[in-house]
Amino acid sequence: MKRVHKITYPSSEKMYVGGKIHEIGVAMRRVALTDTVSATGEVTKNASVMVYDTSGPYSDPAVEVDITRGLGRLRSEWIERRGDTEQLGEFSSEYCRARLADSSLDAIRFPVANLPRRAREGVAITQMAYARRGIVTPEMEYVAIRENLQNEELGIETHITPEFVRDEIAAGRAVLPANINHPEAEPMIIGSKFLVKINTNIGNSALSSGIDEEVEKAIRSCKWGGDTLMDLSTGDNIHETREWIVRNTPVPVGTVPLYQALEKVDGRIADLTWEIYRDTLIEQCEQGVDYFTIHAGLLRAHLPLTAGRVTGIVSRGGSIIANWMTVHGAENLFYTRFREICEILARYDVAVSLGDGLRPGSIADANDAAQMAELSVLGELTLIAWEYGVGVLIEGPGHVPMHKIGANMEAELAQCHGAPFYTLGPLVTDIAPGYDHITSAIGAAQIAWGGTAMICYVTPKEHLALPDGEDVRAGVVAYKIAAHAADVAKGHPGAQVRDDALSRARFDFRWRDQFNLSLDPERALEYYKAGRLGDESDHCTMCGPNFCAMKLTHQLRDCAAE
Amino acid sequence: MKRVHKITYPSSEKMYVGGKIHEIGVAMRRVALTDTVSATGEVTKNASVMVYDTSGPYSDPAVEVDITRGLGRLRSEWIERRGDTEQLGEFSSEYCRARLADSSLDAIRFPVANLPRRAREGVAITQMAYARRGIVTPEMEYVAIRENLQNEELGIETHITPEFVRDEIAAGRAVLPANINHPEAEPMIIGSKFLVKINTNIGNSALSSGIDEEVEKAIRSCKWGGDTLMDLSTGDNIHETREWIVRNTPVPVGTVPLYQALEKVDGRIADLTWEIYRDTLIEQCEQGVDYFTIHAGLLRAHLPLTAGRVTGIVSRGGSIIANWMTVHGAENLFYTRFREICEILARYDVAVSLGDGLRPGSIADANDAAQMAELSVLGELTLIAWEYGVGVLIEGPGHVPMHKIGANMEAELAQCHGAPFYTLGPLVTDIAPGYDHITSAIGAAQIAWGGTAMICYVTPKEHLALPDGEDVRAGVVAYKIAAHAADVAKGHPGAQVRDDALSRARFDFRWRDQFNLSLDPERALEYYKAGRLGDESDHCTMCGPNFCAMKLTHQLRDCAAE
Repeated sequence: MKRVHKITYPSSEKMYVGGKIHEIGVAMRRVALTDTVSATGEVTKNASVMVYDTSGPYSDPAVEVDITRGLGRLRSEWIERRGDTEQLGEFSSEYCRARLADSSLDAIRFPVANLPRRAREGVAITQMAYARRGIVTPEMEYVAIRENLQNEELGIETHITPEFVRDEIAAGRAVLPANINHPEAEPMIIGSKFLVKINTNIGNSALSSGIDEEVEKAIRSCKWGGDTLMDLSTGDNIHETREWIVRNTPVPVGTVPLYQALEKVDGRIADLTWEIYRDTLIEQCEQGVDYFTIHAGLLRAHLPLTAGRVTGIVSRGGSIIANWMTVHGAENLFYTRFREICEILARYDVAVSLGDGLRPGSIADANDAAQMAELSVLGELTLIAWEYGVGVLIEGPGHVPMHKIGANMEAELAQCHGAPFYTLGPLVTDIAPGYDHITSAIGAAQIAWGGTAMICYVTPKEHLALPDGEDVRAGVVAYKIAAHAADVAKGHPGAQVRDDALSRARFDFRWRDQFNLSLDPERALEYYKAGRLGDESDHCTMCGPNFCAMKLTHQLRDCAAE
Repeated sequence: MKRVHKITYPSSEKMYVGGKIHEIGVAMRRVALTDTVSATGEVTKNASVMVYDTSGPYSDPAVEVDITRGLGRLRSEWIERRGDTEQLGEFSSEYCRARLADSSLDAIRFPVANLPRRAREGVAITQMAYARRGIVTPEMEYVAIRENLQNEELGIETHITPEFVRDEIAAGRAVLPANINHPEAEPMIIGSKFLVKINTNIGNSALSSGIDEEVEKAIRSCKWGGDTLMDLSTGDNIHETREWIVRNTPVPVGTVPLYQALEKVDGRIADLTWEIYRDTLIEQCEQGVDYFTIHAGLLRAHLPLTAGRVTGIVSRGGSIIANWMTVHGAENLFYTRFREICEILARYDVAVSLGDGLRPGSIADANDAAQMAELSVLGELTLIAWEYGVGVLIEGPGHVPMHKIGANMEAELAQCHGAPFYTLGPLVTDIAPGYDHITSAIGAAQIAWGGTAMICYVTPKEHLALPDGEDVRAGVVAYKIAAHAADVAKGHPGAQVRDDALSRARFDFRWRDQFNLSLDPERALEYYKAGRLGDESDHCTMCGPNFCAMKLTHQLRDCAAE
């Protein structure tokens, strides 16, 4: 196992911007640029550019991250200082205690043990609860600064203040996932009035992938720009794998607890009980998972609506709970137990991501009655979760042709009381397996422009196999493109600063600056080098020396200046 | 040199569908599907699916294409039978004659010589001219059948009849590029009421790439689905390279004649004259180029409008003509000579693609006064070209953020009298060099949905280097996705048939059918195989055996059936 991991970006400095309300240091990356030198030798300085940084301590040269020890516990002090939580003497989950007691697992166990925290009885400790009480937490100030990058420095007007963050969270229009047992995570926010976020999925299955590989994927996701990370493991040792991931991930971590609950009954859906599921929720809350996908909106009455579908139910969680309902002749237990679920989540500040078990798996099934019926139940559940101060994300499709994307966003807004929408793509056609990071980035950009707050990445391997590290990179970059394109289209304050700086570098033939400002500097440099046949500081292989439009424009401007 | 080239697609049969008006055989590809077998052993046949086929004779098992001999001359008879053109005794272009006489070029010369045809004096022989006279040519019937695929067989209502094709061409709303000297090309149509088309760019530069490699790229483009091909060569032996490409390409070929004209004066822009350009036009008309990009709309008055731009002029042709105007203190010669240009083009049925020399090269420059001023001149020129019966495409941007894409389409419609729009992307952000096939596919899908008739691909190497064969594949597939997504969103008759068939195959675990119906069967199969660890006919590595949503849906349906 490689213990020490580092993330580096070219010409980049790790910065920590201080707060005004709280003593915090908000991580950012400052990309230094070279000077512009005109034909006459005149030198103009180019201001450095701040970029949003999801890489956590991995990219801090002053920190050595040893994954066998985990990341620093950034938020511990903030949490403790509030005095509304207590450290428990042991883990509350039976399963967790059994795993800890099992010495055969010592070899794969994360080496450092931390006891969990939980809200004191009767105290509301969620970011939503604080926001409603008018409190601006360090987490809220952190995200306000983080979202603005260098807007203040550049004099760019912004609507995003710590108080605005608070108000959006209080209203449920934004979620700040921040389990008190994941103090390693840097605060971030998901809401339509903030930067569009992207989620990446990793996780092993019964058929592949070890712990090392999953931690490696998590770090890669953070390197390329993943804002949150879902661990969708379904194989062996889910508990231990997750511990390694959570302890080493500086972004919020999500899961689908149902997957682990089902593994606990060896995949026998009929054997799944509320007790097992409940214990799994507590296990994961105490480990530090920041949000749970729960398929609580899929009801028995919806099942007949899927009968005529081209691709039936394509959500794993949805199909499991559909089978459970059918076998037991009972209503969805996540629906019937939803208040109990919220009570648990609230004690750790875990958010709920209401799963769309009936999302369309083909464009033929998009926006059908099944999908819309479930969405309306997600709206009901949103209000219940909010009663408990639990933040809510609403999951969305899936496969949707372009002309039906708008209606999804409208329906979500109409039914779900402004809770942030969190979509998987959508894929705008079904005909491109092997390229679904692209089919889905097209849909993701559109729906994010329309107001979707977070888009869940799709990798080139979607529909075909589990992604490897390079697939994670391809998926993350495709989704950073979609998210950023949406930020620009929405007019997010300062979003275009990076585009403009990169384009100026391009026009000046400051190749390295151009690459350093790009989403994937390594890839850009690699392609550039492969195309170089000599020294070509003022043109490239694309056009050759006689045909470089930018070179000719420079000549034209020089000519006009004379 | 590899002489014999074949294109194969799995489980596919090359079909030729007969005409009702003319004796024609319209090439299509029929993908055979396997049967669906239910859990109880019930067998259901799945109908084969026709897909649009750009691969020409390369995929016909009955034909052996030897690239040293070129493709069969499909349209020769149709052209000759019309009796309105004549075969010339020699090439009209001085330059062409000099190249033919130069024995030092024998080694790289295409081995077969064909004398050119030209319209008889005073006779209008363009598809547009025929359409206006009410004639449905074999070319028009060909595209009508081609666009419909199996709509008739499936009982899908369609607006696309041979007469509709004729009327759209007559009105200028569609272009059927069909140089009488490129009889190898299979007829296709570009217009907003037809399938969205994609163009690919290939071509060497002074710094790279031989003839072999360019022919190889052309064939790859046709294999993956490129509808037209632009040869943007700027290096040595442009004439000979193009001859190889045109003789071996079953789709219309476009060029920017200015590039070659400039090479003829060794890149000295000041030395460029009308006489050299005119001779180049005739040279290329007689070689069989189907459409020319001509930057005739960029006027002297527009140059000051670019002074404040972030990236100046990024069109090669635009920057050349801008410099020419500045050096000569003269108006754009393509503008002043536009009627003479149209006279030449009309005699060979070459269409004009009015270049957007002032397209924005960064999102900061999108939709600016320079861009819009040029677009309005393109509108004027459109009416002039139509006087001569010359088909017109209007080229569009470029780099445009999503919220400004709609305005581009609207401006084109308002200014250019319904002539088809043909855009390069647009790229919706500047920050992803190395991934610009994705940034631009997002914009291309949107603008094509809005009515753009053809989208020009961008490869991952854009801004960095010339594309190689794999980049051509990545670019073409990304653009096929964008075009198809737009076809579906526009409700093109029958467009969704392929999506639905693929999704049914996916739901049935008919993996091979799924891949065979996809845009890139080889890539899909490659990823699938890499993810297989055993026999998994009814689930995949993504979910593992306990978590396959589709498998569970099947169980659910079986359960409901009992």
